[in-house]
Amino acid sequence: MDGVPVLPLSVLEDGSRTWDRGRRRFGELIREHAHREPSAGGDQGDIVEILFPELVHMWGAEILRGVERVARENRVGVVFSELGFDRATAVYLDDSGGQRGQDVLSVTFLREGQREQLRAQGIPFVVFDPAEELAEDVPFVSATHWKGARAAVGHLADLGHRRIGMISGPDHSFCVARVAGYTSALQEAGLGREPDLFLRTELTREDGYAAARELLSRPDRPTAVFTASDMQAIGLYQAARELGLSIPRDLSVASFDDLPVAAWMDPPLTTVRQPLTAMARAAAELALALGSGEDVPQTRLDIATSLVVRDSTAPPAS
Amino acid sequence: MDGVPVLPLSVLEDGSRTWDRGRRRFGELIREHAHREPSAGGDQGDIVEILFPELVHMWGAEILRGVERVARENRVGVVFSELGFDRATAVYLDDSGGQRGQDVLSVTFLREGQREQLRAQGIPFVVFDPAEELAEDVPFVSATHWKGARAAVGHLADLGHRRIGMISGPDHSFCVARVAGYTSALQEAGLGREPDLFLRTELTREDGYAAARELLSRPDRPTAVFTASDMQAIGLYQAARELGLSIPRDLSVASFDDLPVAAWMDPPLTTVRQPLTAMARAAAELALALGSGEDVPQTRLDIATSLVVRDSTAPPAS
Repeated sequence: MDGVPVLPLSVLEDGSRTWDRGRRRFGELIREHAHREPSAGGDQGDIVEILFPELVHMWGAEILRGVERVARENRVGVVFSELGFDRATAVYLDDSGGQRGQDVLSVTFLREGQREQLRAQGIPFVVFDPAEELAEDVPFVSATHWKGARAAVGHLADLGHRRIGMISGPDHSFCVARVAGYTSALQEAGLGREPDLFLRTELTREDGYAAARELLSRPDRPTAVFTASDMQAIGLYQAARELGLSIPRDLSVASFDDLPVAAWMDPPLTTVRQPLTAMARAAAELALALGSGEDVPQTRLDIATSLVVRDSTAPPAS
Repeated sequence: MDGVPVLPLSVLEDGSRTWDRGRRRFGELIREHAHREPSAGGDQGDIVEILFPELVHMWGAEILRGVERVARENRVGVVFSELGFDRATAVYLDDSGGQRGQDVLSVTFLREGQREQLRAQGIPFVVFDPAEELAEDVPFVSATHWKGARAAVGHLADLGHRRIGMISGPDHSFCVARVAGYTSALQEAGLGREPDLFLRTELTREDGYAAARELLSRPDRPTAVFTASDMQAIGLYQAARELGLSIPRDLSVASFDDLPVAAWMDPPLTTVRQPLTAMARAAAELALALGSGEDVPQTRLDIATSLVVRDSTAPPAS
């Protein structure tokens, strides 16, 4: 891969400590980077670019904020582009990528074919929260999806729930990890995974609603549900209301994301916090470190999630 | 004002038609702008910058998206910066503003002292949805706050409500306009404005909650409330639930913003749509037109709002 050091795979298990270690290490690199004289001229063109397939309102601002803060600390600019999900190639790359060349670092959601274009131009990049399995030499920043899901479902089991359903998302790698965390927590609690209590759909509110209508209409409905996204949980709340089920009295709900809206729901939603701003900071720091040509020890980072317990979970009605 | 043509005040009354007229006019300028050869070299540095005091998650992405789309159409980059509310001066300007100079166009939330720095460096700028009254030579893009509020409160009056309260925000110019729209609609409906039904607070959920607790606990509580922001309405919903008031059976609620969350509330919220992406597009086009040195006829634009009627408003209980 042109311009990017190829480094060994190191998806570490303890996201929190990885992050701390990673921060210290990148911090050293970044300080060195920052010591360049900002008015020296030649370095002024440095830019961190964020390529979004689509700027999703609930996530975009937190991610941009993290990248912007690292960029400001390092006196480089932030450029962002929205490509549209249906574009075969990046407009940015076609139009002017070659001209910006080595000055550009990219925090990207691009898929393989598009990443190939970045490589061909020697533009270092970091993949943000990848949805697919990546080759071992592709730098990324993700979150501890498996551990987060395991903590949420473990919390439900600890409350005494025995019939714990899950509404999952598509086969993105982070959804696969969340499903595995659900299954692990069930096993640790001595519970088997019941196929009838597991539904797979899209991560949207509408699909969460439809899946919840199906799941909660069964005579043997679960007493608790783990959803793979807060948007699904919003849909599930609506379905529960329509079916006359009170949360958490009749049904406990735990979710994944901790979007701002989670705290505003009625009742406030227990959910796994995905630290988007911290992830974006890490991705920007990693991009800068790669761009400076340093030998970066960790190019594949999982940032720690944390369970935020609010009012949507309680022991099952006896 | 250096680098920015000084043009006559033209806050037009019909936001919609202003926008259409503005778009056509700017469209001509933009096409001319776009005809420059993108690979010609000298123009490649052109950048539209967005300066946020703080990147607010509920608003930021929609605004960024609008600016990005115009920039892409015109083959200029988008750079954004977050300054922090408490900074006396813009880091960006101190560090490198002078170096970027004429290439930078700014869509900005900066206040007067900071705008003065942009002027001093000859950087054309457009103020986005200004919170204060601006001098006549300052270009801005805002929304039809007065008309939007009048439409929302008129809708409540048309439903038969006679005791219509308002929870307003601070003395920002757009809040002043929303309060004036509320008062106008009451007058048109033959209703007086009752001081007891009007509360002024911050635009947050927490402040909306506190104000609603006060307003709805009165023995002569209103049958309908207009809030100056969707976040206030979320707080009001919580207060209504705690007081055992059902929306819309016991209380109608209309609001202002149409953030995505408005459609997810229970019941979905009737609110005035503030077209942030369209406003951002207009601001970016205006900044590009000013940057091209053209004589721009409209530099002060109000983009049209629209009332989105959902399920939180109904006739008062008889």
